[in-house]
Amino acid sequence: MNLEKLFKPKSMAVVGVSKKNPLSPGRIVFLKNQFELDVKAYGIHPEGGEIEGVELYPSLDKLPEIPDLLVMAVGAEATMKYMQESIDLGIPAGVIISGGFAEIGGEGIKRQETLKKIAFDNDIAVLGPNCIGVYAPPLIDTIFLPTERITRPPKGSVALISQSGGVLVDQFFVKFKERNIGVSTAVSIGNRAVVDETMLLEYFSKVDTETSNIAFYLEAFSDNKARRFLELAHESEDTIITFFGGVTPQGKIATQSHTASLAGNSKILSAALNQYHIIQPRSERELLTYLKVYDVLSQKKKPFGENTIVYGDVAILSVSGGHGVICSDMLGKYGLTAVQFTDKEKDEMKGALNPVAREIASFNNPIDLTGSVLDGDIVNMIQYLSNIDKIECIILLLLPYPPNISFQVGRRIGNVVSQERKPVICFIPYIEKYSLIIESLELSNIPVFHSIKEAVQAVSALKLRTRIHNLKNDNIFWK
Amino acid sequence: MNLEKLFKPKSMAVVGVSKKNPLSPGRIVFLKNQFELDVKAYGIHPEGGEIEGVELYPSLDKLPEIPDLLVMAVGAEATMKYMQESIDLGIPAGVIISGGFAEIGGEGIKRQETLKKIAFDNDIAVLGPNCIGVYAPPLIDTIFLPTERITRPPKGSVALISQSGGVLVDQFFVKFKERNIGVSTAVSIGNRAVVDETMLLEYFSKVDTETSNIAFYLEAFSDNKARRFLELAHESEDTIITFFGGVTPQGKIATQSHTASLAGNSKILSAALNQYHIIQPRSERELLTYLKVYDVLSQKKKPFGENTIVYGDVAILSVSGGHGVICSDMLGKYGLTAVQFTDKEKDEMKGALNPVAREIASFNNPIDLTGSVLDGDIVNMIQYLSNIDKIECIILLLLPYPPNISFQVGRRIGNVVSQERKPVICFIPYIEKYSLIIESLELSNIPVFHSIKEAVQAVSALKLRTRIHNLKNDNIFWK
Repeated sequence: MNLEKLFKPKSMAVVGVSKKNPLSPGRIVFLKNQFELDVKAYGIHPEGGEIEGVELYPSLDKLPEIPDLLVMAVGAEATMKYMQESIDLGIPAGVIISGGFAEIGGEGIKRQETLKKIAFDNDIAVLGPNCIGVYAPPLIDTIFLPTERITRPPKGSVALISQSGGVLVDQFFVKFKERNIGVSTAVSIGNRAVVDETMLLEYFSKVDTETSNIAFYLEAFSDNKARRFLELAHESEDTIITFFGGVTPQGKIATQSHTASLAGNSKILSAALNQYHIIQPRSERELLTYLKVYDVLSQKKKPFGENTIVYGDVAILSVSGGHGVICSDMLGKYGLTAVQFTDKEKDEMKGALNPVAREIASFNNPIDLTGSVLDGDIVNMIQYLSNIDKIECIILLLLPYPPNISFQVGRRIGNVVSQERKPVICFIPYIEKYSLIIESLELSNIPVFHSIKEAVQAVSALKLRTRIHNLKNDNIFWK
Repeated sequence: MNLEKLFKPKSMAVVGVSKKNPLSPGRIVFLKNQFELDVKAYGIHPEGGEIEGVELYPSLDKLPEIPDLLVMAVGAEATMKYMQESIDLGIPAGVIISGGFAEIGGEGIKRQETLKKIAFDNDIAVLGPNCIGVYAPPLIDTIFLPTERITRPPKGSVALISQSGGVLVDQFFVKFKERNIGVSTAVSIGNRAVVDETMLLEYFSKVDTETSNIAFYLEAFSDNKARRFLELAHESEDTIITFFGGVTPQGKIATQSHTASLAGNSKILSAALNQYHIIQPRSERELLTYLKVYDVLSQKKKPFGENTIVYGDVAILSVSGGHGVICSDMLGKYGLTAVQFTDKEKDEMKGALNPVAREIASFNNPIDLTGSVLDGDIVNMIQYLSNIDKIECIILLLLPYPPNISFQVGRRIGNVVSQERKPVICFIPYIEKYSLIIESLELSNIPVFHSIKEAVQAVSALKLRTRIHNLKNDNIFWK
């Protein structure tokens, strides 16, 4: 089944466009595509006429062209009628927003079975039902929530697939935007009657060239599809990440009433995913941290060079002793190591600092430059540490409070890192007024985090990814 | 030793005020107190004269009054001279910003011993050395970082004591501000040569009436003081919380070079703290969540009534199925329980909703009102759930994306909660444009969190506090 018309349609039609209710899902979807996105959008209403100055068509067969995609925001019965029209007209893809299928049980299950058969028999790529659909910037957005109410992530390398529309739009979109993580395409799969996670893995892995990282929020695999999913993941050159909701007993009960699926035995699941080189973050925050790092690594410039983080040997560079302590605590928890410096190295570092800081700084690892630090001290230290081979990654704990730190510090650090290409992960407190420094670092592809824990998770993400790529290249399974 | 002059001085003098360097610590401290705070501040410079239009005094004995507090931002040797002057003039309290004491070893250790003896013999309440001192709004602020560079928390019920100045100003101040957690007084204890965590616990517990919650960030207890600390905590009517940095082996090594202390055996430590009813969050985020909840509970209005959260039996009210699943997952992890609803209760809930939502909503627990929700549905549900006795707390997962949710929703929910006084904890995504809703909820004392995990931690905080208060009232030790 070809999914390209679903994600890269040139034209789309929307049924369920209300002339009376400006908040009806179909009307919201139609007008946002009409006004905000690149696809050619057509609105359908049996009476024709117009809404907000935009022409409506009385039926699909009256459109000036056969659309690539049909978005159905009508009841379950009407949806089935429009599926038949899609077959008749040869519309190759559909998004079904409506509920009233398997999730309501009884006749809904039968209806979904019929839908599935029709779609496969006629090769129509159907997303849903009971989903919010696709966000594929700058082309289409079938999310029926008003754009001004939600937050959308920037364009990037991550294909994001979610079994829950609410989780997609809220948990992910909000936090992707906050962390500057870019999506290629975001997909809500709903009841996944036709298009499921396995088909999406194949599409984003083999067909879509904008995607380098594929992340799934699932409550369970589709029946009998797990094996194929694992094989596809193992073959893929992309980085594959899964995060499962509903894994505790209480979560499972909640899942049942939500999507009528069961997560199965989570331990067996986890072991299988691991063996097939699928990354499994332990928390939502870890997931976000990993994706942020992998999105940066996917950039054409390859900002971290060869990215050979094998052992997780780091140097911690701080301007506050206490922050160094917290960071060291975290390293241990994530199986990373602070390298030991020789006396010669300590002397050389001391020589690189201003005369005041030199006397009170501490040159163990964590290195504490103290509040007497100048911009140049940080720059010199990054330069120096970048050239020590045993250091695989530098964690920079940058508090902009010392009075001599200037607004140029981010750019100066960025310029050194761009040349040296030693991975640098930065922690800066999240304070609006320091966005100038944060932006200058991120422009230089230094991932910036707002908690020390996330900065350490980011190094762990680098180590994990190096290991997986090595294993995949050797074509061996995970130990 | 009386600590009131340290935290509530009517007047203070600052030595180490540079006339040449506008960024010198002493000058920053002097001018911020002069211009921004309520204390009467005097700047000392041997030549007298003025800076930025403000008069300087040539020496302490030339001041028009004996100040309550002397802030020393000079070298270690000069500090010792000013300690002698404090004795001669009868200045009862001091903050020593300077390093050059025990943390540098050798003669520094001897110097600190002398300092300690002088201070105790002459009953001078000395904070530090090697600290950033005190922030006690609206009276004083001895933090030598420019105010415009840092972020400060609002006024509230939490006394915050930190062994690391950097952690205090960054980790805590930034996140307190972000989460709207109020401090009564914040203290950086540095080398704690004289005033230590145990004396502070006694002061904030017995003397300071603004404080209801006392939080410590420590790397280790002072020698031979742990037993007294535990006893004081057990006697205290305040809620006592400790968070230890440097507890992993790598963290311990970092701690040694930072403050020359060792955390000791963390398991024994933890068991002792537990037995004496000291709350120990497992992570920094958990600490912040607890403090936010306890700060709200400390308000005069007692917004949550009797606060009898014994079992952690909750109702989850959501407008997104996926969010309900994630929340249910979390409940299990925190030892909390989603109550079961009877068929009668489900029918009654159904009857409280608008005709569209009623047909598609799910009335298990989590309750999913779906995207067809109206403001009034949420209000009705909160009202209904507030009157079910088996529910101890409501977790409201409020996504403002459904098109019919209005900006009034927060105020309407708040008004119901203010009357019903059933504890309600709210999750809302962190998006600037929804601050109107967030603020209206927080004005009604509903703690708002921006992750589902933190919302669940907040219920766990309520349960923990109820249990501790019950145990303390029965005067029994923790089981």
